[in-house]
Amino acid sequence: MKLGRVIGRVVSTQKVESFQGVSLLLVQPLDEKLNKVGDPIVAMDTIHSGTGMIIYYETSKEAGRVLETVMNPSDASIMGIVDELFVDSKK
Amino acid sequence: MKLGRVIGRVVSTQKVESFQGVSLLLVQPLDEKLNKVGDPIVAMDTIHSGTGMIIYYETSKEAGRVLETVMNPSDASIMGIVDELFVDSKK
Amino acid sequence: MKLGRVIGRVVSTQKVESFQGVSLLLVQPLDEKLNKVGDPIVAMDTIHSGTGMIIYYETSKEAGRVLETVMNPSDASIMGIVDELFVDSKK
Amino acid sequence: MKLGRVIGRVVSTQKVESFQGVSLLLVQPLDEKLNKVGDPIVAMDTIHSGTGMIIYYETSKEAGRVLETVMNPSDASIMGIVDELFVDSKK
Amino acid sequence: MKLGRVIGRVVSTQKVESFQGVSLLLVQPLDEKLNKVGDPIVAMDTIHSGTGMIIYYETSKEAGRVLETVMNPSDASIMGIVDELFVDSKK
Repeated sequence: MKLGRVIGRVVSTQKVESFQGVSLLLVQPLDEKLNKVGDPIVAMDTIHSGTGMIIYYETSKEAGRVLETVMNPSDASIMGIVDELFVDSKK
Repeated sequence: MKLGRVIGRVVSTQKVESFQGVSLLLVQPLDEKLNKVGDPIVAMDTIHSGTGMIIYYETSKEAGRVLETVMNPSDASIMGIVDELFVDSKK
Repeated sequence: MKLGRVIGRVVSTQKVESFQGVSLLLVQPLDEKLNKVGDPIVAMDTIHSGTGMIIYYETSKEAGRVLETVMNPSDASIMGIVDELFVDSKK
Repeated sequence: MKLGRVIGRVVSTQKVESFQGVSLLLVQPLDEKLNKVGDPIVAMDTIHSGTGMIIYYETSKEAGRVLETVMNPSDASIMGIVDELFVDSKK
Repeated sequence: MKLGRVIGRVVSTQKVESFQGVSLLLVQPLDEKLNKVGDPIVAMDTIHSGTGMIIYYETSKEAGRVLETVMNPSDASIMGIVDELFVDSKK
């Protein structure tokens, strides 16, 4: 999983059927110091993340499993919201 | 998922059987400001995307599931067309 | 999927059992203008691709499915040969 | 799999259900000389890794299988702790 | 699949159960001219590869299938040893 910040959302009406009713957010990947790394991705959200929140997300087959429909074809999902981050970057 | 723009299409007659009848488009990956990032990919299209459209696509095992045949061997599919994109890149 | 050019082949006798009889080609990834991008990969070929041909290939779990044995452990396969490529790179 | 060092941990209460009770560590990817490469990731830990330890981890579908629930949606897991590393980098 | 050279091995006693008895080698990824590309990975070996050998390996879900236990959680495996490599890099 990777750290990221919710920076926006995607509005889309013409899409594959299994995406009906799914919330799609724009997520900026971050490093452990919360600096931006790489380009934003489009991720499903099922835990009511809000813009500006620090979250961790997955980009793989597992990402579709957070929805009830196991076969839902998503490859990126927000898994949780970060409360605190402890980093010992010296080691 | 990632943002992209449809920039062309691939014509192919000699191919694996499960790809018969499948539309293959050339997609340029984009960042959240719609600047180009990385190299174009070849993606399946089942939602009738047209050249120049902004879309979001997947590159993974899930991508094959948009076709009726679950076992169809594709690793990249267009999932939806972007109507609007809200970005708060300051956060 | 990605575009590529067949640039060679791999001869290998000591290998995992499920690869017996499988043709392994060396593929140079290309961008939409057919310029080289990144390093060559080793891909299975089941559609009789020849050296110098422009093809599109997959690198993922789906790649193994082009063989009769669903469980065949390959992660890269040539899916089809490109006849024509229409690119509108201005958009 | 890749080599890494445990550099911290993530505290998260609002998350997907299958992550309840799972320990999430921050892992810095390393090369064979134990130099940092790339950005830290968030990985599940089931083998009681501690901060500062050199470990090897996976980032893929397999990563979720170390938990009892096969369907657990994780894409990164610590697989083992490195006791010794023999490198012949001249070859 | 990718080309690589076996450059070392990993000794690990505290690890996930399904890795008991599995040989873990350090593999340096190579390009078609056998130059180093990127950082070494940790891969399972079931075909008795030795240090210094040129091999091809996979990094994906398929990698776990070379062991008898289909559910074995590995994401990187050596698939075969390269006897000869024919490259026509002009094309």
